[in-house]
Amino acid sequence: MSNGIPKQPMPLADLDASKLEIHLAATLKDLPEPSSLLFGETKTDHMLVVEHEPLAGWGKPQIVPYKPLELDPASHCLHYSSNLFEGMKAYLCPDGVPLLFRPDMNATRMTLSAERLALPPFNPDALMALIKALVSVEKRWIPQLPGYSLYIRPCLIGTRPAMGVVPSNHATLFIIVSPTGPFFKHDGAGVKPVSLYASFDHVRSWPGGTGAFKLGGNYAPTFMPAYRAAQEGYQQILWLLEDVDPKETDAIEANGAVDVEKKSSEMRITEAGQMNFFAVIVREDGDLDLVTPPLDGTVLPGVTRDSCLELARFHNLPTDDPLYTCLPGIPATRKVYPCERNITIEELARLHDKGRVLEIFGAGTAAVICPIGRVGYRHKDILFPEYPGGYGPLSKALVETLEGIFVGKVKSTWSVRCE
Amino acid sequence: MSNGIPKQPMPLADLDASKLEIHLAATLKDLPEPSSLLFGETKTDHMLVVEHEPLAGWGKPQIVPYKPLELDPASHCLHYSSNLFEGMKAYLCPDGVPLLFRPDMNATRMTLSAERLALPPFNPDALMALIKALVSVEKRWIPQLPGYSLYIRPCLIGTRPAMGVVPSNHATLFIIVSPTGPFFKHDGAGVKPVSLYASFDHVRSWPGGTGAFKLGGNYAPTFMPAYRAAQEGYQQILWLLEDVDPKETDAIEANGAVDVEKKSSEMRITEAGQMNFFAVIVREDGDLDLVTPPLDGTVLPGVTRDSCLELARFHNLPTDDPLYTCLPGIPATRKVYPCERNITIEELARLHDKGRVLEIFGAGTAAVICPIGRVGYRHKDILFPEYPGGYGPLSKALVETLEGIFVGKVKSTWSVRCE
Repeated sequence: MSNGIPKQPMPLADLDASKLEIHLAATLKDLPEPSSLLFGETKTDHMLVVEHEPLAGWGKPQIVPYKPLELDPASHCLHYSSNLFEGMKAYLCPDGVPLLFRPDMNATRMTLSAERLALPPFNPDALMALIKALVSVEKRWIPQLPGYSLYIRPCLIGTRPAMGVVPSNHATLFIIVSPTGPFFKHDGAGVKPVSLYASFDHVRSWPGGTGAFKLGGNYAPTFMPAYRAAQEGYQQILWLLEDVDPKETDAIEANGAVDVEKKSSEMRITEAGQMNFFAVIVREDGDLDLVTPPLDGTVLPGVTRDSCLELARFHNLPTDDPLYTCLPGIPATRKVYPCERNITIEELARLHDKGRVLEIFGAGTAAVICPIGRVGYRHKDILFPEYPGGYGPLSKALVETLEGIFVGKVKSTWSVRCE
Repeated sequence: MSNGIPKQPMPLADLDASKLEIHLAATLKDLPEPSSLLFGETKTDHMLVVEHEPLAGWGKPQIVPYKPLELDPASHCLHYSSNLFEGMKAYLCPDGVPLLFRPDMNATRMTLSAERLALPPFNPDALMALIKALVSVEKRWIPQLPGYSLYIRPCLIGTRPAMGVVPSNHATLFIIVSPTGPFFKHDGAGVKPVSLYASFDHVRSWPGGTGAFKLGGNYAPTFMPAYRAAQEGYQQILWLLEDVDPKETDAIEANGAVDVEKKSSEMRITEAGQMNFFAVIVREDGDLDLVTPPLDGTVLPGVTRDSCLELARFHNLPTDDPLYTCLPGIPATRKVYPCERNITIEELARLHDKGRVLEIFGAGTAAVICPIGRVGYRHKDILFPEYPGGYGPLSKALVETLEGIFVGKVKSTWSVRCE
C-alpha cells in the first residue's frame, strides 16, 4: 500500500457455518435393509467438505453428493499421517428429530487434535453447526428401530501438496455419515462379554506420546497386534504400559481410594481395544469404586468415559433433579465413587482373586459399554465375572441411563437436537 | 465347483514388475532452474501406481502422467493412517546412468512397514525393479550438477473404502520422484551445523511402539514440537526417552566399550530431527567410538546409519579392496569402533565436559550427514565442537566416502545402476 500505513497480513477466515452451501444429489440411493448394516460400510447420499488454504483460511463449507476426494499424490496426509477424526452418533428422538450426545466434547477434542498435529485451527461451534446441518440432510438414513443411529465421522486431513517435512497449512475438513445398528444385536441372545489379549509386546501409547488425541496414527499400529490376538482366540487387545508414577498413586491413596497396590515392573492398563477401560471394585463396606485410568496423556479423553464418571457422581450427590439421583438398580445407599487412577493388570488379578472385582468393561461411542469377560495375560486366562444378559450391575445401570439420554427418553442437558 | 474337488482360494497375485505398463505424458513439463529447487516441492511428469484388491492381489503396475489420486472419503488411510513410505535418491553417474544407493535396504524396510500396519505384502525385488523403471523414465529431471539428485518416494496407503476398524485389504502403492539439490547449498559458505532442542515433553518413540518403521504416523506428531522449538531458536528436535535398559548397557560394557555411565532418570537419545543420531567419542588412546543408539525398536534402521557403521568397520579391517581400507583423512592406525549403544544426554554432556566428544551429527537420506552444534536441554545450551567447513574429522571422512559412492566415483557393491 502506498499510503504509508504498514501492510497488515489479512486475518485468515475462520470456519463459518453461515457460509454453508447445500448442493443436493439429483437422485437419492435406496435405503438398505437395517439388519444388513455393517458398522461404517454404508455410505449415504451426501458429505460435507470445506477446505483450508494457507493465505485465505477456511473456505465455504459445502454439502455435496458423496464422491471421491481428489488428492495430489504428494499430499501431506498420505505421507506424514496428518489425519485425525471424531466419532459420534445421532439417534432419533420419539418426535423424529435427530439427537446428538455431547457434541461439544467431540468438537473441542477435534480442535485439540488439530493443534497437536499443527493443522489449521477452527471454531468448534461452527463444526457443531455443520454436523447438525449434515445430519438434518441425511436424517432419512437413520433406521426407526431401537438401537439404530447415524454414525458421524468428521475428519481433518493435511493436504499440502508437497513432500517437505513441514506442517501442512493446506487442509480438508470433511464429514461423512453412515447408518449403523446396535453394537450388540438385539436378537435375544443378549450382550456377549468380549475376550481381550493383554499385550506387552505392543504398546498403544506412552507418556509424551499422542494417546490422548484422536489421531489416525494411533490406530494404524493396532491392526497387526489385534489380528495376532484374534489368531489366539481373543477379540481385542488390552493395552498395557510398563510405567506407574508412584507420586500419582500416593496422591490417590491420600484421597482415600482403597486397594491401591503397586509394584515395580507391573504393567498398568491404558485402554481396551478402541475403548476406555473400567473396573468396578467392591469396597469392604459394599460401596463401589468405578476405576478408570486417569487422563495423563496416555488414554483418550472419551465422551462415554467422562459420561460414566459423571453419572457415578450424580448417583452420589443429592440433587433436585430426580433423573440423576440414582443409577437404576443401584440403591442410593450404595455409593459409587468415580476413581481415576492407574491400575495394573497384576493388581486387578489380585483383587479378582479376593472376589473384589464386580465387573470390568470398555466404554466408547461405537459399543457404548462393552462387558469384558476373559483376559489372556502371560499365557494364562483370567476369567472376570460374567452376568446373565451380559452387563454387570453397574454397567447395566450406566448403559440404560445413557441409552435413555441418547434417544431423548431421559431428559438431559447433554442432548442436542438437530433441527 | 461341481466336480467334487474342494474349492481352493486363488492365490493372490504378487507385485510383478514384468506386468509394468508405461503410458507416457503427451507433453512434458519444462525443467526448473536447479538453484530454485526446494526439497520435495517439484513434481515430475510421471508417477508409478499399482493397486491391491482383496481377492485378486496386486494388479498391473502403471507408469502414468502425474495426476491426483481419487480416494473414497472413507478410505482407511485417511482415517486410520495406514500409510508408510520410503525415501531414497538417484544420482547421475559420470556416464549418465542414474545410480541408486542400497535400494534393497529401502525395499526390504518397506515390506516390514507394510507388515507392521497389516497392509498387503509384496515382493521387494519387484518394488526395486519398478523404482528403476520410473527413475529411468524420469532421468531427464536429474540436474547435472554436483550434489543434485532425484529424490524417490515410494508410498503404500490402505484404501479400504469403509470405516470399519479392521486392517485394509485394499491398498495403493505409488512412487513419485522429485529433483532435489544438496541439503547444504554448495555456495562456499560450507555446511552449517544445526541447533537442536532436546525435548522431554514430547517423545517420538517408545519400546513396543513403531519407531523402527517408516510410518507416516511417526511424523505427524513431530511438527508441533518442531514448530515450538523453532520459536525458541532451534532448528530441529533431539528426541529423548526416559528409559535405559541396564541389562543391555551391561552387555555393552562386557563387550569392551568405554565410558558407559548410566544413572536413573537420565534421558537417552533416540533420534535427531528425522535423522539417526551419532556421537564420536575419543578413547583415552585416541581411537574413536562411533556411538549410535541400537536398533531396539525405538529408532529407524536408517540406510545412512548402517552405512556409517559399515564404513567404520571397513576402516578397521584389513581387506584386499583398497577402497575400503581407510576413511579419508583418518590414519589407519586410528581405529574407529562402531558402537551401537544407548547414550543419555547427561552422559554426552559429561563426556563433552571432559573434552571427549569429537563431534556429534545426524545421518539420513535427505542430508546424508548433518553436523550438530548447539543443543538446548533444560534451559541450558550445550555447545558441541564445530569445525571449519562444518563437518568434523570423522563425519567429513564418512560424507566424502558416501558421496563418492552415490555418484559412482567410489566403486561399491552398494551401487545399483538404473538401466
